[in-house]
Amino acid sequence: MNAHAIETAPSEPRIADDALLTPAQLEARLRAIGAERYHDKHPFHALLHSGRLNRGQVQAWALNRFEYQRCIPLKDAALLARIEDPDLRRIWRQRIVDHDGERAGDGGIARWLHLTDALGLDRDLVESGRGLLPATRFAVQAYIHFVRERSLLEAIASSLTELFAPNIIGQRVAGMLAHYDFVSKPALAYFDSRLHQAPQDAHFALDYVKQHARSREQQDAVCAALRFKCEVLWSMLDALYLAYVGNAPGEDRIDMIPPGAFRPDPEPGA
Amino acid sequence: MNAHAIETAPSEPRIADDALLTPAQLEARLRAIGAERYHDKHPFHALLHSGRLNRGQVQAWALNRFEYQRCIPLKDAALLARIEDPDLRRIWRQRIVDHDGERAGDGGIARWLHLTDALGLDRDLVESGRGLLPATRFAVQAYIHFVRERSLLEAIASSLTELFAPNIIGQRVAGMLAHYDFVSKPALAYFDSRLHQAPQDAHFALDYVKQHARSREQQDAVCAALRFKCEVLWSMLDALYLAYVGNAPGEDRIDMIPPGAFRPDPEPGA
Repeated sequence: MNAHAIETAPSEPRIADDALLTPAQLEARLRAIGAERYHDKHPFHALLHSGRLNRGQVQAWALNRFEYQRCIPLKDAALLARIEDPDLRRIWRQRIVDHDGERAGDGGIARWLHLTDALGLDRDLVESGRGLLPATRFAVQAYIHFVRERSLLEAIASSLTELFAPNIIGQRVAGMLAHYDFVSKPALAYFDSRLHQAPQDAHFALDYVKQHARSREQQDAVCAALRFKCEVLWSMLDALYLAYVGNAPGEDRIDMIPPGAFRPDPEPGA
Repeated sequence: MNAHAIETAPSEPRIADDALLTPAQLEARLRAIGAERYHDKHPFHALLHSGRLNRGQVQAWALNRFEYQRCIPLKDAALLARIEDPDLRRIWRQRIVDHDGERAGDGGIARWLHLTDALGLDRDLVESGRGLLPATRFAVQAYIHFVRERSLLEAIASSLTELFAPNIIGQRVAGMLAHYDFVSKPALAYFDSRLHQAPQDAHFALDYVKQHARSREQQDAVCAALRFKCEVLWSMLDALYLAYVGNAPGEDRIDMIPPGAFRPDPEPGA
């Protein structure tokens, strides 16, 4: 059996294709999508968390992931610009505050730059976007365009990957601190903040879609939006894996770093 | 020296960063970008043309490339919708005719379906978009959004990869016919038509950008648009390479086909 074919948990009773799901059934479907497709299942993350990447590979990850961090407030602003309800706008705008902070040097983007600093990446390089994998850009732009172009319900549903974030963040912080001498606790401050913010955001969005997806068609669109967002995150790791890990480390490796993308310095002693 | 750092041919005299290029200098820059970054340089193409792919891998290529073919008329329609000049619209609309044909079963999209038919892919699968690599979708959508959102000059410049197409098409047709018993001449009819259409289209677009890029800033934007488009094509092959080839064919291969993407049938005897 193809492990990738599972879209609902095996224990879940069969539901007719056009039957309205209960809110609890919708939530179960969303959680099953995460269990199968969230990027904590990607081989790159296993390597990152278990200390099997070298400094250049961790740099490539942090550099490319910065593009995602940089664009999250743009994504949330695009979403905010489509919300008619002031109550909902007041709640959603907090996400922009969380990422941009109250002042320069504050917020999630600034905290991500502490990580890239700690990894020895030049800030000019990081902030310029030079050296990004094109696939990173395309995935992040796909997310922004999705939020601009799809229904508000789908746009909100695409944020639901946050439901699965606390688990991966816990693994990441523990694993990176244990395994990499070039990573310290202050460098990982970004993740501490997200451990509080992500669950709040995710539970709000989950309640929203459970309440507002009132037809089966809308419920299916919510599930598709979460699958789409999982694809965004997954394809970013695919591109990192191809360019910076490869299937055969060692002498047989083909150089698959795309033209113009970041090239780590040679490892000392390599 | 890093081969990817070359952006101008080494023989080209150094030109000041803000000096207006002559039309011939602009053309030389564009051709140097293609010489470095067009996807004929990607390892996947060497494998495809030299017969080192199996049928499932060629299927995966044709299936994912269909998404690009399917969206080209959408891209050209988005571009057409931004052209104020009826003369230019009359010329550009021919591209839509070339891809959509005069009647059902005619045109470039229909000819690509002859190829996927010949490879044994189910038409419903191909036309549905199921099984596409997410990175394929993101790259193709990035192209459509680029044409919608950038200046008309940049949108037209992004089509300039056609300048380099005849060379790759010649290699592809000869190589695929020589090496794959599951590929026949009629299955490759798409490429015969493109051998005539691509040079006409490319020369028109090249003349257009040489005439209309009147500041160095515009000339740089034209070059950036071509680099962007090379990245679109390159990242599609990166994703195919990771999912369906990998760096280490054989027992050490990790399964990198993303969740939900096309899985070839096992090779007979494999």
